[in-house]
This record gives sequence, structure tokens and C-alpha cells, in this order.
Amino acid sequence: MSSSNRVVRLKKRPVGEVAADDFAIVEEPLAEPQDGEIRVRTAYVSLDPAMRGWIAEGRSYVEPVAIGDVMRAYAAGHVELSRNPKFAVGDAVTGLLGVQSHAISNGKGVLRVDEKEAPLPTWLGGLGMPGHTAYFGLKHVAGIKPGETVVVSAASGAVGQVVGQIAKIEGARAVGIAGGPEKCAFVTNELGFDAAVDHKGGDLAGALRAAAPQGIDVDFENVGGVVFDTVLAQMNPFGRVALCGLISAYNATEPPPAPKNLRFVLTMRLRVQGFIVFDFARQYKEATAALLGWHRDGKLKFREDVREGGLDAFPAVLRQLYGGGNFGKLVLKL
Amino acid sequence: MSSSNRVVRLKKRPVGEVAADDFAIVEEPLAEPQDGEIRVRTAYVSLDPAMRGWIAEGRSYVEPVAIGDVMRAYAAGHVELSRNPKFAVGDAVTGLLGVQSHAISNGKGVLRVDEKEAPLPTWLGGLGMPGHTAYFGLKHVAGIKPGETVVVSAASGAVGQVVGQIAKIEGARAVGIAGGPEKCAFVTNELGFDAAVDHKGGDLAGALRAAAPQGIDVDFENVGGVVFDTVLAQMNPFGRVALCGLISAYNATEPPPAPKNLRFVLTMRLRVQGFIVFDFARQYKEATAALLGWHRDGKLKFREDVREGGLDAFPAVLRQLYGGGNFGKLVLKL
Repeated sequence: MSSSNRVVRLKKRPVGEVAADDFAIVEEPLAEPQDGEIRVRTAYVSLDPAMRGWIAEGRSYVEPVAIGDVMRAYAAGHVELSRNPKFAVGDAVTGLLGVQSHAISNGKGVLRVDEKEAPLPTWLGGLGMPGHTAYFGLKHVAGIKPGETVVVSAASGAVGQVVGQIAKIEGARAVGIAGGPEKCAFVTNELGFDAAVDHKGGDLAGALRAAAPQGIDVDFENVGGVVFDTVLAQMNPFGRVALCGLISAYNATEPPPAPKNLRFVLTMRLRVQGFIVFDFARQYKEATAALLGWHRDGKLKFREDVREGGLDAFPAVLRQLYGGGNFGKLVLKL
Repeated sequence: MSSSNRVVRLKKRPVGEVAADDFAIVEEPLAEPQDGEIRVRTAYVSLDPAMRGWIAEGRSYVEPVAIGDVMRAYAAGHVELSRNPKFAVGDAVTGLLGVQSHAISNGKGVLRVDEKEAPLPTWLGGLGMPGHTAYFGLKHVAGIKPGETVVVSAASGAVGQVVGQIAKIEGARAVGIAGGPEKCAFVTNELGFDAAVDHKGGDLAGALRAAAPQGIDVDFENVGGVVFDTVLAQMNPFGRVALCGLISAYNATEPPPAPKNLRFVLTMRLRVQGFIVFDFARQYKEATAALLGWHRDGKLKFREDVREGGLDAFPAVLRQLYGGGNFGKLVLKL
């Protein structure tokens, strides 16, 4: 066992893109779990778009990470000490354990996961929070119905890849929007989406119309900006937008001037609904069971983008996420 | 009886603000009702924000008025000839009868109204389509609950004035946004809103915060643009936006760059839902009964802005509507 904890702490709030010196990477004495607590040795840290909001000032759904605090993150690892009867040494777990080599937790929000079903990165991806986000957004927020056309942006990303596959499972037409031919080929050839549109390929509106000739009933929106605007103009009457993310705007220092096509929300009687996966915490078990079942049946595949370099690489890898530099669920290996 | 029909026909599609020469005002031979039809002599024409959309090109919830067609409008008048057993000569009626002195109708969508309950302009306003819009938007789309704070823009307008009063009836706090101190005084002093904010008064955000210190649960949005953007930033978690109109953008020749504060839809898990009153046609009777009951009980007051000048004044009066030049439900007397 190590005798020290390596920790990524927030040093200052980023302006625009995150920079290496927004974080301090420090060695600290290893803490001992108190009664009811466990100590987890982190194996993988999850890099999620929401992180940019967690370190920004301003009104949001959770308090921002305070200056000096451990950077908030989902992580996966193994229990190495336990003074909590619900966990045994060696258990594989996930939770909001932070960007650090070792985490002390009272077990609240920490889930035991089965590495025989899937490796740890998948439990941070399609079988974890991003998978839950796809599940609740599509089924509970958008209310997907068979025969409908679903469009999902950031389609090869952690959430998007699951959205399109659940849409297919539910009998809908799945159209993905992704950046570049490789990601587009992946979602159609590997994941079975009906069509993919390259937002870097020019004439986004025309390509989208060809991919969704019956119009769009559900937009699972991860990106915002021009992509969202283009989708809005092609929504069918009474369509729904599950607003999950606006990654195109997260690094913006000025609020982005979008969408211009808001009038279609009115004229097409659209329902645009923001949601945060945390609000569905009581139903995570339902979602995990469904996702795992589909995965066992071969109907749900996952792609992770696992990066080496340990905690030192955290700021640089996080930065790539906002430029689409990842291909699949982005995870940092410790 | 007159022997000719005076008709306002659409001559060309406006660019930006409507202009007099977008319409042709013509005398035509008076038509006779055929079997099953009635002829209505128009007394009042309703001027509604939706008209700008009805004469614009592009995808919308109804086909635009074709070039050469009678301008679409709600109107109120009296049956002067009837070959339809449901209507008697002298009946007061309202319906989508168009901007013309006489209308032939098969009676579909034409409602008999009672002038002892309220004068005809009110049947085009608070007891008509705008009242229905307020009723369904607040109760069915937003799902208003007692104790919540409701903000309505264009608060002294045809729809807005009813929204705030229904909010009060339902036990909510009603905050109106209106242009100028006179309109603001009207909604608080005459209509009983809890507070009013003058969007021409400077520091809209600060004034809104003072008027809605507990934050905003429901936004009944009629205006869009900066007003909507400011409201979005003060919405409470799980708030709802009933998106009824975007009048600030209707004359725009370039799509307006709003809202900038879309991120709050995501972080506050808002539901933004567009709606069109036509979709509730089967429930108009329910709404009329409720509105009339409140009106009889003195809980629901209405203000109309009745203009003289006959059909010739139609283009100029319509134009004023988009600049807030009306004070109450705008109606043209023939």
C-alpha cells in the first residue's frame, strides 16, 4: 500500500478553456477510514462534460467545487480498507470519489460493481452515469415511442452512443451527429444507428434532412449552438428536446447567441426539457438493470477512450473533451 | 343591407414591419349563403400578434395566408342571413371570419356569444381566443400550482392581463412585465397583480428580482428576446415556461440571437413548452365556462383598446401592435 495520497485540487477558476495551472497536483498524507467509512484506491477517473460547470462560478444545480477542494469526479476503484459493513476489502466500486489516488467515503452514493460483467471503465461509461443519463433522458424526459426519429448530438460520446442504441431497442430510428467520418462510421457500422451526420462535413441542414426524411421527433441534445439550431428547424410538431448538455458553450467567455430558431419551439409546439441525472438517483437500479440486460444480450455496446499518464495528465485530457478530442467515453487510468 | 363586401386581401408578404401596401382593400359583390351557410356582418375585427406569422412564409402550425386571399382574423358580428339551422338571424357570433365587412361561413368554428354577458370586443379578448390562450397555457401547459410565482410578459395585453388574474385566482403570485408606468399601474391597481416591472425602466434584472424575490416558477412568455433572457436567469429549479409568443422577433428580418441564457434550462431543469391555442379546440367550452364564471364573480376584468377607422385602418393599427402601441386587447371597429 502507498503511504501517501496524490490529489488534484482546484487552484483557480478557469477562464475559457481549462489550463494546467487551474489545478494543483499534490502529495498528501494518506487518511485512515473512520467508523462507517471505507478507503478506495482509485483505478480510473471519469472525465465528463459537466466538469466544466462544476468548476465555474454562478447559479447551477450543485455548488461549484470550492477553490482548494479536491476536483469532483466520478471514479472507479477497489476498497482497500473498510470500516463499513456494506463493503468488503477488494470490492470494485464507483462513485463521486474525486480526482485522487485514494478516497475516503462513508459509502453514500458508492455503488458496488461486477467486473465479470464489464471492466471498470464501462462502469464509468455506458453502465454508469452516462448510461443512466441516456436512459432517463430518452425514456423519462423525451418519452421516446416506437417509429419515431431520434437525433442525438455528440453521438459517439459517452452518453450519445447509448442514446442511439436505446432508441433502436425501443423501435425508433436513430440518427447520430458526430464530428468526422470515423466517428460517423462507428455509430452506424459498430453501434447500428440508422444514419450519421458529420457536423464538420458542410451543409449540416441538408445532411440532416437526408438522414431524417420524416423529420425529427426527439432531439437528445448534448451540444447546443449551431447543431441544436439546425435540429430545431427540422423538429416535427409536438417533438421533444431532452436538453442534456451544451458542450459547445461550456468554455465560452461570452454567452453564446443561440438558438436563433426558438420560434420553432412555439410553432411546432415543442417541449424542451432540461434534466440532470442526479434527479433520478432513486431509479438508478432500474436503469442499471435494463442497461446490463441489453448489454448481456449483445444489444448495447460501449466504447471507452482510456488515457494513460495518471493524475498528472488530468488537466490536459480534460481540455481535449471540450474540443471533441475523445472517441468514446473518456477515462483516465491511474 | 349593403350590396357589396369590403375586403382586406393580402397583396404581398411584408418584409420587416407590415406596411399599408402589403394589403389591398377592395369592394366586391356580396355573396349569398348556400345551403348550410350563414352570412355574418362583421362588427369588430380582432388584431392578434399571431397575424404576423400568418402572413409570413416558412414552416408553421398553419398554412400562411396565400397572396390574394382574405386576411385571416378573428372577428365578431351578427348573422344577417342564415341557411344553417344552428344559427338564427341576429345571433351574435365570433370566429375566424377574416378582415371583411361580411363573411360567408358554414358555421364550423363559429361560436354564438351572449352580448348580455359581455360586449363583442370582450368576446374577441378575455372571453375569446386570448382568454383561452391564457387559460390553457397557465393551467394545462405550465401546470400552475398555488404558492408559485408566475411572471407574464406583455402583461397588459390581451393574453397577459388574463394570465395574471388567473394566476391570482389559482393562489399564485402574479408578476407582470409591461412597457411604461401606465401599463404597470394598470395591472397592479386595476387587475390586482402582486407586482409589475417596467421593461423600459432600466435594470430589468434587478426590478424583476425585487418583484419575484422567491424566484420564478412559471414564465408565461409572450415576448422573447431580452425580456425572456432575463426571466430565464431567475427561474427556480423545475420551473416551466409556457411559450406562447415571441412578439419581439415577429418583425425581425434576421433571426434574433436569443436566448443567451439557455444554460439555465439545463441547470435548473426547466421545461420550455410551445403551444398554440388551436390544439385545445375541443376544450374551448370548458375554458369559456371558467372564464365567464370568474368574470361574473368580478374576479376577472378585461380591458380592450377599440380603434375606429374601419377596414381602411387595418394595416396601420396592426403595425402598432408589434411596437406595444396598444393598451389592452386591440380591436378594430367597423
